[in-house]
Amino acid sequence: MEFKDYKIETSELSVNYLREGKGPPLILLHGWPEFGRVWKENIPALAEKFDVIVPELRGFGDTRRQDGKPVEGTTADILTNDLKEFLDALGISRVSIVSHDVGAYVAQGFARAYPNRTAALFFFDCPYAGVGTRWGEATHLKEMFYQYFHQWPMAEELVGYNHDTCRIYFKHFLERWSADPHAFDKDIELWVDNFMKPGNIKGGMEWYRGALAMRLKWITEGAPKVEPIACPTRVFWGQEDRIAKIEWADKLDEYFSNLKFSAAPGAGHFVHYEKPEMSNKEMLNFFTPLITGDAWK
Amino acid sequence: MEFKDYKIETSELSVNYLREGKGPPLILLHGWPEFGRVWKENIPALAEKFDVIVPELRGFGDTRRQDGKPVEGTTADILTNDLKEFLDALGISRVSIVSHDVGAYVAQGFARAYPNRTAALFFFDCPYAGVGTRWGEATHLKEMFYQYFHQWPMAEELVGYNHDTCRIYFKHFLERWSADPHAFDKDIELWVDNFMKPGNIKGGMEWYRGALAMRLKWITEGAPKVEPIACPTRVFWGQEDRIAKIEWADKLDEYFSNLKFSAAPGAGHFVHYEKPEMSNKEMLNFFTPLITGDAWK
Repeated sequence: MEFKDYKIETSELSVNYLREGKGPPLILLHGWPEFGRVWKENIPALAEKFDVIVPELRGFGDTRRQDGKPVEGTTADILTNDLKEFLDALGISRVSIVSHDVGAYVAQGFARAYPNRTAALFFFDCPYAGVGTRWGEATHLKEMFYQYFHQWPMAEELVGYNHDTCRIYFKHFLERWSADPHAFDKDIELWVDNFMKPGNIKGGMEWYRGALAMRLKWITEGAPKVEPIACPTRVFWGQEDRIAKIEWADKLDEYFSNLKFSAAPGAGHFVHYEKPEMSNKEMLNFFTPLITGDAWK
Repeated sequence: MEFKDYKIETSELSVNYLREGKGPPLILLHGWPEFGRVWKENIPALAEKFDVIVPELRGFGDTRRQDGKPVEGTTADILTNDLKEFLDALGISRVSIVSHDVGAYVAQGFARAYPNRTAALFFFDCPYAGVGTRWGEATHLKEMFYQYFHQWPMAEELVGYNHDTCRIYFKHFLERWSADPHAFDKDIELWVDNFMKPGNIKGGMEWYRGALAMRLKWITEGAPKVEPIACPTRVFWGQEDRIAKIEWADKLDEYFSNLKFSAAPGAGHFVHYEKPEMSNKEMLNFFTPLITGDAWK
């Protein structure tokens, strides 16, 4: 299935997005190293019942700053406001959100800032504050290196030197973070072409730069106490996720008061991409009963 | 001054070394990202009074395995034994050692394993067990990323893609870790050519792979208690060293019982290279009085 790209302007961005289907609005938010089409095997199934809208985050895909300047210092607050402005521009008041990785920070930020506009949340794995000091645990630094590597301009130069170096770098994550290291083989050139678009390697790294202070605060001070998010929430976490470990899900119920959690068997970090049929079924099982209730009203 | 390269065989290696001057034997041990000629501005001054011997560590410079296989899993114990075999092959019983960075682990290993063969030690900065949990401190992970990046085969492929990517990578460290970011400008191509020799990018990374378990033990369990090293010891630590922070010197006297410590003003991580005149003076001031005593006997 081929998807059409749409553009819409917010105060600062020209947001690129996909949109398919009719029904209550359902937003899909990608992570790193991803872009809108990471959802390509999920959109058709969801589009049968929902107005599926897939924006690309600031610094990713074909979303650009209107002034042509590079993205810098992307924080969760900035991305949350980007989503709010995007929905305002589309004239959509209340949404459900499916998210992954970086997208999970945006979904949580939006649900906290705009609870009345948030119908329900579905997370494929869920990086959240409750991971606390474990974000910096020594035995996991081998996996976490990229968060610190990405702080340096050298990293952009090295990864973005040409298509080959870009492929070497992203292949590492797509292979290492998937339960089946060959999961992305058929699409690797899509990934390379996407990240070699001007500004996208830096764009992704700017998230790690902008989010560093928040992450260091969690590592050094531990998990902050916050009001839990109250809307219906589903977390489906790859049992074999090597980077966001499933045992870190243990504090989720302190952050989400209406939570259903389960492990996604046979899947790594990219559950939605690695196991699309299983993922589509879980999303439809969660969202479909909410259509006829008050969630989207 | 041009130096001649010599080779000598140990049980496993063909060790490449420089050798200049006459007098008591003085070993200079380089670190990462370095090789023998990092001492090129120090050798002539020292050679006036000493038999200056500069071996290149396993995985570095022109030292190679005799069987042509790649170096793997280099630990401090392996490097210590390499030095012992190297000295045995040269027929040298007792030495003084000047060391930097990785070399400091070898100097400490040798002084502990062979106290009767160790006359005196001089360290330009001194990575040591007393840094303890601070090796993993969250606010320093931005600087420390390379120790974890180096764990992955992808890192070899990316850095070693060609001379340009190699230059991008090593320039980062040479600039960032020097007090004057231009300190290595005149020699950058020497560094690139050295690391692009077959096996040298991997060779350096294998030290971080082999040393990871030791480092994680220090991070998670804290500084181990060990008998202090008793021979005359001088530590001269770059005041502006960004990677091995001078405040980490606070436990040195628990690890060296005959210690003279001072900060090297205006220098970063590469004191010996950045400030050769000052460094040569400090080395000569420390070692010259020992020549006429019992140190080398």
